[in-house]
Amino acid sequence: MLNKNISAKLLIHCPDQSGIVASVAEFVHKFKGNIIHLNEHVDIEEKTFFMRVEWELENFTISREEIGPIFLNEVGDKFKMNWNIYFSDDVPRAAIFVSKLNHCVFDILSNTFSQNWKLEIPLMISNHNDLRELAEKFGIDFYYLPITSENKTEQELKQLELLEKYKIDFAVLARYMQIVSPDFISKYQNRIINIHHSFLPAFPGAKPYHSAHQRGVKIIGATSHYVTDDLDAGPIISQDVVNVTHKDSVKDLIRKGRDLEKLVLSRAIYLHINKKLLVYNNRTIVFE
Amino acid sequence: MLNKNISAKLLIHCPDQSGIVASVAEFVHKFKGNIIHLNEHVDIEEKTFFMRVEWELENFTISREEIGPIFLNEVGDKFKMNWNIYFSDDVPRAAIFVSKLNHCVFDILSNTFSQNWKLEIPLMISNHNDLRELAEKFGIDFYYLPITSENKTEQELKQLELLEKYKIDFAVLARYMQIVSPDFISKYQNRIINIHHSFLPAFPGAKPYHSAHQRGVKIIGATSHYVTDDLDAGPIISQDVVNVTHKDSVKDLIRKGRDLEKLVLSRAIYLHINKKLLVYNNRTIVFE
Amino acid sequence: MLNKNISAKLLIHCPDQSGIVASVAEFVHKFKGNIIHLNEHVDIEEKTFFMRVEWELENFTISREEIGPIFLNEVGDKFKMNWNIYFSDDVPRAAIFVSKLNHCVFDILSNTFSQNWKLEIPLMISNHNDLRELAEKFGIDFYYLPITSENKTEQELKQLELLEKYKIDFAVLARYMQIVSPDFISKYQNRIINIHHSFLPAFPGAKPYHSAHQRGVKIIGATSHYVTDDLDAGPIISQDVVNVTHKDSVKDLIRKGRDLEKLVLSRAIYLHINKKLLVYNNRTIVFE
Amino acid sequence: MLNKNISAKLLIHCPDQSGIVASVAEFVHKFKGNIIHLNEHVDIEEKTFFMRVEWELENFTISREEIGPIFLNEVGDKFKMNWNIYFSDDVPRAAIFVSKLNHCVFDILSNTFSQNWKLEIPLMISNHNDLRELAEKFGIDFYYLPITSENKTEQELKQLELLEKYKIDFAVLARYMQIVSPDFISKYQNRIINIHHSFLPAFPGAKPYHSAHQRGVKIIGATSHYVTDDLDAGPIISQDVVNVTHKDSVKDLIRKGRDLEKLVLSRAIYLHINKKLLVYNNRTIVFE
Repeated sequence: MLNKNISAKLLIHCPDQSGIVASVAEFVHKFKGNIIHLNEHVDIEEKTFFMRVEWELENFTISREEIGPIFLNEVGDKFKMNWNIYFSDDVPRAAIFVSKLNHCVFDILSNTFSQNWKLEIPLMISNHNDLRELAEKFGIDFYYLPITSENKTEQELKQLELLEKYKIDFAVLARYMQIVSPDFISKYQNRIINIHHSFLPAFPGAKPYHSAHQRGVKIIGATSHYVTDDLDAGPIISQDVVNVTHKDSVKDLIRKGRDLEKLVLSRAIYLHINKKLLVYNNRTIVFE
Repeated sequence: MLNKNISAKLLIHCPDQSGIVASVAEFVHKFKGNIIHLNEHVDIEEKTFFMRVEWELENFTISREEIGPIFLNEVGDKFKMNWNIYFSDDVPRAAIFVSKLNHCVFDILSNTFSQNWKLEIPLMISNHNDLRELAEKFGIDFYYLPITSENKTEQELKQLELLEKYKIDFAVLARYMQIVSPDFISKYQNRIINIHHSFLPAFPGAKPYHSAHQRGVKIIGATSHYVTDDLDAGPIISQDVVNVTHKDSVKDLIRKGRDLEKLVLSRAIYLHINKKLLVYNNRTIVFE
Repeated sequence: MLNKNISAKLLIHCPDQSGIVASVAEFVHKFKGNIIHLNEHVDIEEKTFFMRVEWELENFTISREEIGPIFLNEVGDKFKMNWNIYFSDDVPRAAIFVSKLNHCVFDILSNTFSQNWKLEIPLMISNHNDLRELAEKFGIDFYYLPITSENKTEQELKQLELLEKYKIDFAVLARYMQIVSPDFISKYQNRIINIHHSFLPAFPGAKPYHSAHQRGVKIIGATSHYVTDDLDAGPIISQDVVNVTHKDSVKDLIRKGRDLEKLVLSRAIYLHINKKLLVYNNRTIVFE
Repeated sequence: MLNKNISAKLLIHCPDQSGIVASVAEFVHKFKGNIIHLNEHVDIEEKTFFMRVEWELENFTISREEIGPIFLNEVGDKFKMNWNIYFSDDVPRAAIFVSKLNHCVFDILSNTFSQNWKLEIPLMISNHNDLRELAEKFGIDFYYLPITSENKTEQELKQLELLEKYKIDFAVLARYMQIVSPDFISKYQNRIINIHHSFLPAFPGAKPYHSAHQRGVKIIGATSHYVTDDLDAGPIISQDVVNVTHKDSVKDLIRKGRDLEKLVLSRAIYLHINKKLLVYNNRTIVFE
């Protein structure tokens, strides 16, 4: 009963053609897996097929290690699939990059330490010392790596060493306020999650609440996305909004935005951890 | 090319077991159908499987008439399926039941006459004459059937005759304000859509906006549902809400609620027409 | 009892200083008006004061005609106020500019003909003939004025003549799809309401739903605003949004957006008709 | 410059009559206060007037201590006002009552320790020991007072002593899961804030997420309210909702509801701390 209550999650994308669902479902069925979730999506314009299938491993007749090779042989190659397999007892490891603001961090801590999420956070990195105390309260190693235009390359190398050392699977920029270099990004493609405090693509860049106030919008938003070289233009994972009025000063927008930012970032982390995301053509497929 | 751009939609529910998705997908694949949408849902507690699959008919090698019998034979019987098949060029016929308020009717007319919906509305029935002129503007036959406690049975019989005569597939109670009898309902099970002007199960029955104001809620809602014998307790199809404040009088709630009511009712009609709804245990499965 | 159930609405903005509310409230009180709504707002940065006050006229001891001159003399001049007075029985006259889409028009018709709004719509102008039949059903004079790059100036002159002839107070561009010239706009400043089918300032200009789909946003929106020379950059009156997913094609976005567009436009018209809007520095003050 | 950047907040309700706004505004103006916010509301049915006015104290010519007596003498008595005055540098003291769940507590800690709120939390009381460690991390005294049907009266007495000892201004039931007795409530009228995990008045009492799932609603909610003797029927302060689908199990509803609960509770605390709430006839007036 090694795999009791454990499920396998298979994420797939490939050129669309008929017979894919049947083949994948047949593969799971053949080895006595019970499908508990199956989502598929066809992008008609791109003629591309996307799928997430989750099945119980309890009576599955092949071992975890065999699933990949056998799937590749029986199904994956035939349909030229791009695929990954995960298991529900995986516990990914995240590094949190922060600056001075703590609301997103608190929400991440809340979800992690209450075990809502299966996640370990061994590492926090910051260009300020403000959140050291908070990190230490929760037993997270905190590294103060202040960044200037002179030392940026060097500090990023230290950051990368830390990610390596702590065996980090993905990084969260929790209002980190620094631009990450293309080199860094290339090493963690689709594994760096950022929160931007506007309803992208409106108000990219710095000071979006000031811009929103200036423009007189009636709704503000927050956007979580994977980081790409193109600033604030990476694949959007989640967005949410809140109503504002002429009575709201910039300070009010910042206050109202805090709740949005933390929720939208936490939703993205939840989806990432639970392997409910595929990225294709700079857009996300969210299997909810 | 008789079936160019036409799709078949198959709705299924049955006891859950492994292999269902594989069998259905294989059925479609075998006759050269291309699946464009597949949604499945397993109710773990009820051990029940639900599915909606839609595929293009263009190159399908069996005719529309054959699909049912062959599916039953090859798949349906094996899994003890409860199933229905529809086609994207079906044009259902609706009867609209109204009283004096016109906002829901306007929205239905807008969606119908702009051909957003594939729907015919040959018949409007009312216990008041107020909307006759509107119906006639749009070429809809209008029947004035005032209802009293004395004549209710008799008038409902006339209504049923009209539904029969006009070959009506489903009825919409667009703020009709009358309780439909169990006899009537039994003839149109899951085919009568009502809009209730509250966020059910809060404030069932009459005058929900007055009750909402009295209770001091900060949000009001509207609920569309299939009509059952149990008043305002039928399977919920769609709900939506809007914020209110202490400044809103009952009159304001009624005004704000109008937009909700029409949208929530129209969404339900859209889902019903496009065969995106299954009803099970007094709840709806909405395949969106 | 000439003024039974009639109220006066005074809208003010002026440089901020202490004593304004006291003076205005004292003015109303002195002539035995009963204030039923008072909203004030101070823009701290701009040091500007905004106010909307509504009072019952029933026992007001000065006539409608006298209110303006006496207010100016006793309060307005002293505080260098920019002000306007309106009465709740005013019935403004609107012209609707349309193209081929009817969903916004239907919503406007619904609100007008059900007398939810105190509004007359004597005139509809279009560059297409598609909505002539609808206009005529509701007794609205319809003018077909197709616009090309050659005849634009000439056609706009005809439009302006029609607005004059029909004594139009404000115009609504209900998905009109044409850019109105600065000359036209200058004659109807803050009196032309447009609906843009995106969450401005995201996706200004043409084809916003295509852009939204391309960018992979998870929420789409609609924005109503007063038209200014700067395309899609006028003072925002109302905005709303709806969730979308990767499953939504451009066609789905257009469908989901229709409901947003009509509601957001109708809310703007409601606020405009009821004199709940002030424009200042390209932003609106919405007194709700 | 003792009062630089400090404001006074006056909350009033009284029978409606004409002249109230003028009198209050004149009072502030006379002593050289600059009004920065003024909200008034007239409940037409109840013929009751409500007002919140906030003014800068910097140049105010009477001291904090004098404001009350002078206001009473010059304005309050005349209009039979029920009123209270507060100052923006007040720092209220809250006790948090908890059980095992930590999401609401985390949000409260986040807002408090980041100094978003002017609030002190010296005391946490619980019927379980689970959150002791969290309280102690943040230097909050934690009391474990398990409650049974036998010891309830006795334990509540201990709780009341603690509230007294710690000079607590108001209590927050952050998913406390216990019913507070009428005696306790009477001592802290409109000073105990609860979060209920449903969109009240739907699903009062225990296990609302189970009931919501059973009923098949498409939206779930959370409600913060002042605690009264009538369970889950006290004055509603804030509500919010989130969409759910047939795919959401009870466990999913609980997960989605967590975010709602913490936000809705934190909004209520924010409004309470900032003196933006009046309670009248079991409803709240929220001056936002």
